[in-house]
Amino acid sequence: MSQPIDIAVIGATGTVGETLVQILEEQDFPVGTLHLLASNESAGSGVMFRSKSLRVREVDSFDFTKVKLVFFAAGPAVTRSFAPRAQAAGCAVIDLSGGLSAEAAPALVPEANAARLENLAQPVQVSSPSAAAVALSVALAPLKNLLDIERINVTACLAVSAQGREAVSELARQTAELLNARPLEPRFFDRQMAFNLLAQVGANDTDGHGALERRLVGELREVLGLPALKISVSCIQVPVFFGDSYSVSVQSRKAVDLAAVNAALEAADSIELVEEGDYPTPVGDAVGQDVVYVGRVRGGIDEVEQLNLWLTTDNVRKGAALNAVQLAQLLIKHVV
Amino acid sequence: MSQPIDIAVIGATGTVGETLVQILEEQDFPVGTLHLLASNESAGSGVMFRSKSLRVREVDSFDFTKVKLVFFAAGPAVTRSFAPRAQAAGCAVIDLSGGLSAEAAPALVPEANAARLENLAQPVQVSSPSAAAVALSVALAPLKNLLDIERINVTACLAVSAQGREAVSELARQTAELLNARPLEPRFFDRQMAFNLLAQVGANDTDGHGALERRLVGELREVLGLPALKISVSCIQVPVFFGDSYSVSVQSRKAVDLAAVNAALEAADSIELVEEGDYPTPVGDAVGQDVVYVGRVRGGIDEVEQLNLWLTTDNVRKGAALNAVQLAQLLIKHVV
Ligand SMILES: NC(=O)c1ccc[n+]([C@@H]2O[C@H](COP(=O)([O-])OP(=O)(O)OC[C@H]3O[C@@H](n4cnc5c(N)ncnc54)[C@H](OP(=O)(O)O)[C@@H]3O)[C@@H](O)[C@H]2O)c1
Ligand SMILES: NC(=O)c1ccc[n+]([C@@H]2O[C@H](COP(=O)([O-])OP(=O)(O)OC[C@H]3O[C@@H](n4cnc5c(N)ncnc54)[C@H](OP(=O)(O)O)[C@@H]3O)[C@@H](O)[C@H]2O)c1
Repeated sequence: MSQPIDIAVIGATGTVGETLVQILEEQDFPVGTLHLLASNESAGSGVMFRSKSLRVREVDSFDFTKVKLVFFAAGPAVTRSFAPRAQAAGCAVIDLSGGLSAEAAPALVPEANAARLENLAQPVQVSSPSAAAVALSVALAPLKNLLDIERINVTACLAVSAQGREAVSELARQTAELLNARPLEPRFFDRQMAFNLLAQVGANDTDGHGALERRLVGELREVLGLPALKISVSCIQVPVFFGDSYSVSVQSRKAVDLAAVNAALEAADSIELVEEGDYPTPVGDAVGQDVVYVGRVRGGIDEVEQLNLWLTTDNVRKGAALNAVQLAQLLIKHVV
Repeated sequence: MSQPIDIAVIGATGTVGETLVQILEEQDFPVGTLHLLASNESAGSGVMFRSKSLRVREVDSFDFTKVKLVFFAAGPAVTRSFAPRAQAAGCAVIDLSGGLSAEAAPALVPEANAARLENLAQPVQVSSPSAAAVALSVALAPLKNLLDIERINVTACLAVSAQGREAVSELARQTAELLNARPLEPRFFDRQMAFNLLAQVGANDTDGHGALERRLVGELREVLGLPALKISVSCIQVPVFFGDSYSVSVQSRKAVDLAAVNAALEAADSIELVEEGDYPTPVGDAVGQDVVYVGRVRGGIDEVEQLNLWLTTDNVRKGAALNAVQLAQLLIKHVV
């Protein structure tokens, strides 16, 4: 077993941060001292770790020389403010916020591009990409050499928890108001989210693409090692609490061998292939699990070069916290 | 104004049938006597039409020689049982159930292929296609000549009302159970629908495609007059009561002129183009309206031959009942 190392989690009171702390405990990760950091709003509160309540502290006054590894699980602005200090203190950084450039912190999904870790400058900075990039990379990495992928079309159906804990409370609140026939006043979302679909996540750029859509395209090309991959992606927000789902259509340049695709998915450790005729759902399958569920594996209608898939995965766990801890496991073996 | 004609609506107590009767009234359709038909379950109940309560009767004992036009808005099995009797009695038939073959009853969406009505054998049988085919045809017909469409990718996010009134009650019931922390026993759907996504609508064939997915491909090719169009489609069931939404990505063989696309959408009567930066939702825009809402009109990321769109429309109204009444308006002008 590795030497215990001292770790800081920034955003420890958030949806992702709390799960990350849980997973460090579940996996018996070699943690020495764990420092839980957040804003002044929740400084002083406690978070359970190994049967003890650890006091949350404010990140602003944290001395990064106390730790060797820092997880950034607050927003991108927090990462941009504090990652330079962490790096100056010699810490390895795992960013979950998308706050660092691809050059400063390459996107990593162990199932797809673990090798990328090998020649990074010290102290290492890596990024755990968007939950969508994690799910799609895990599902497509085993198929990459089997297909000659020309294009991927994705409709990403994001759970409200993708926007953090306030979004989760807001869906519950809106739903209760509507069921009790009370007038709805949207707060976190700018309109009704309950029993509705929102076709946009955050603001769009002048070309009409959302930041998350652009980010996904960049991350997926990088993680899959396919820089010229054509990707069309639409992110929509759905009234689901936890569990992102992806409707995926892949165009290959050659006929798709469905039996080989099924065998490759079946063989992948981080994939649970749901049997033909059934399909996985976010609530019924993905939530709380460590794998990407894949179902509805089928070809095209009248087209042998097409592959269609349905994916669903726990966005907070597999899509973020678990991927980051998997990265940490690799880091402590190779570099920290 | 046309001569009043006697009409039968089969499935008049259903989600689509009730709306159809409402629209006949709203449009002041030249109805002589209106016969409302259903199964023995609701025979005897009343449905309001022009301030009178009309008695619903059983379809089994109906004498089709009493009417000139029949709307079939019960299931496909009911259409297959009774359309031959209607036709033998000389009635024009408008089927909303998908129960007749494309040869027996061509799919029609007035905004896209009204001309198809002109050379049909008497008595005329036509089909109002699936709500998905209506929405996509209305949105794509004005773009057909502007783009050189090679392929369409669609993720169809269907409201529960697409499955009729029982599905609507079931989503409400499940949501209330969950909010009250009572154990969930799914009834209409085979699993939790509230706060969840179901990746499949009905059973799949041995190739993994759903009947609705296959039907949509056939109908869209027919209605758009593009028999070789490549289409990839996934239908998913979302926890929304009314209003279907479509995430659409179009591949053209030439660069897409976005200004021309916007102008063509803007000019189309049955389309409401939502201004840039905003987007339409099923609950906030589509429900109760007679148009297809279009938003998020944008090109590809790094690809000039791509066009992405988000559509949302009232599945029961524009997707079914209204399209059928629009067909009836054309029929009475040309053929009945
Ligand atoms: N949710 C997901 O599915 C998901 C997936 C992948 C990546 N991510 C990314 O992970 C990050 C966290 O997301 P989340 O869903 O966990 O959000 P969240 O539930 O809203 O939690 C936010 C966390 O950040 C902390 N925080 C906020 N402002 C801060 C500040 N100025 N200084 C220090 N800490 C601050 C909060 O602490 P307080 O308690 O003090 O407010 C809280 O711990 C985001 O960048 C998000 O994009 C999320
Ligand atoms: N809902 C949509 O968005 C939509 C869109 C396009 C097409 N459609 C199609 O339209 C049809 C009706 O759908 P819906 O949503 O209105 O369903 P629904 O709400 O379940 O209503 C079904 C209707 O059919 C009647 N019916 C059932 N069995 C019958 C039988 N054996 N004989 C005579 N009538 C019978 C019912 O009458 P009772 O009251 O007697 O049971 C009721 O009026 C279906 O084929 C559906 O696929 C629906």
